[in-house]
Amino acid sequence: MERLTAKQNEKIKAAVSIRDSAKARRETGLFFLEGARLCADAAENEIEIYRAFFTGKALEKYSDYSKKILASAQECYEISEEISSRLSDTQSPQGIFCLCKAQEKNALGADIRPDGKYIFLENVQDPSNLGAVSRTAEALGVDGMIVCGGCDIYNPKALRASMGSALRLPIFTCDNAPETLKELGKKGMLTLASTPDSSAVKVTDVDMVGGVVCVVGNEGNGVTRDTMSACKVKVTIPMDGRAESLNASTAAAILIWEMVRK
Amino acid sequence: MERLTAKQNEKIKAAVSIRDSAKARRETGLFFLEGARLCADAAENEIEIYRAFFTGKALEKYSDYSKKILASAQECYEISEEISSRLSDTQSPQGIFCLCKAQEKNALGADIRPDGKYIFLENVQDPSNLGAVSRTAEALGVDGMIVCGGCDIYNPKALRASMGSALRLPIFTCDNAPETLKELGKKGMLTLASTPDSSAVKVTDVDMVGGVVCVVGNEGNGVTRDTMSACKVKVTIPMDGRAESLNASTAAAILIWEMVRK
Repeated sequence: MERLTAKQNEKIKAAVSIRDSAKARRETGLFFLEGARLCADAAENEIEIYRAFFTGKALEKYSDYSKKILASAQECYEISEEISSRLSDTQSPQGIFCLCKAQEKNALGADIRPDGKYIFLENVQDPSNLGAVSRTAEALGVDGMIVCGGCDIYNPKALRASMGSALRLPIFTCDNAPETLKELGKKGMLTLASTPDSSAVKVTDVDMVGGVVCVVGNEGNGVTRDTMSACKVKVTIPMDGRAESLNASTAAAILIWEMVRK
Repeated sequence: MERLTAKQNEKIKAAVSIRDSAKARRETGLFFLEGARLCADAAENEIEIYRAFFTGKALEKYSDYSKKILASAQECYEISEEISSRLSDTQSPQGIFCLCKAQEKNALGADIRPDGKYIFLENVQDPSNLGAVSRTAEALGVDGMIVCGGCDIYNPKALRASMGSALRLPIFTCDNAPETLKELGKKGMLTLASTPDSSAVKVTDVDMVGGVVCVVGNEGNGVTRDTMSACKVKVTIPMDGRAESLNASTAAAILIWEMVRK
């Protein structure tokens, strides 16, 4: 295994840039993972590992995890403790890092099941919310998550909040939310746009049998007008007329729950 | 209004200590609030304001909020910008701070409605979870939150995550969770203990008509054994048999939703 020792090594600089910059993630189609368990999760879930970095200590201490990662990574490098500190976001790094290929299945491809349940995030900005929704989506067993409008689910904070679920849950991308939703609607799926507007249909009054896509919008502005129009039904979570609203990830959790509730 | 200028003033030191220490909050029965809106919320919601601190600038800039606070606070002080920075948790403080009296109604008192819906938190530790649950509880319109076992809902982080809901929602304390739940059960309330154990009763199979108290436990260890035994029914959120669990605040959101769902 090649050993990298210079902090200014191009491969290390590239990894840091992908860790820190949404733009670098978009341009390379790669994302950054830290930690023995999370990197092994990626390997087990057939996420393509482009580069893996290990400290000598980590190879020993986390040998089971390391084996899985070594077996699936295209390129592997041993790094010094100093580089490990440079790469790490944490106080006491485990010394294992990966660059992985982002899931890039388009929501208009064949992988969306017309009878499946999908949560669709439009312009959700807060990494903790993105991670929390993916965790809930996986735990409650929806068929996948569709992300649109710069929802940066591979932001390191989002990945951490997701507890690895973003690696296990099928993730779909989409370029144009209204068009994608119209197409999914034509395939017979029920497309729902969520809104705090209490005149919308109560989520408890919607028949969720069959394929459903439910859109959750930006924390401040909600679902965009065009996306709202492209959906078959506007739904709301009845809130007893209170002024205060639910957090975006909590609203998403209740909508996901209603999709899968039997 | 008396003007405080020395950072080492005893009143300022006491405020900082109540802001930073759960022990000081317990001992004094007070909690610390920062921000014009949040402090005015306290005044409007008949939270007792023991001391209020304002910078000269804040009194002008937030005069509407300030009037409400001035009208209800027992003691008011003008503070320097320097003291405001000392008191503040934020980069650009608004210059308004209060020490308020914690709600201390006991869950065995007369204020719990036997036909009401209550979420009960036992040993929930993470301030973000505490704040998130209180926000959800208020938005979805449960009748109150019962906290037990050092759930520190007046932690500044919890208050921030609660978006002020901890000031508006009736909060009840309890010294002994199992005994309190047994008593509430004797009053005819349905007492539920939540668990990830998939052999428990599905939450969707529980009849939530009438009074209900639902217990959510510690993030790592769940509901304690004695509390579990004291409840009439163990409930679980069906998760399609997935290994990964829901975040505590998400689980609480779904349980609250099921309590109020019509």
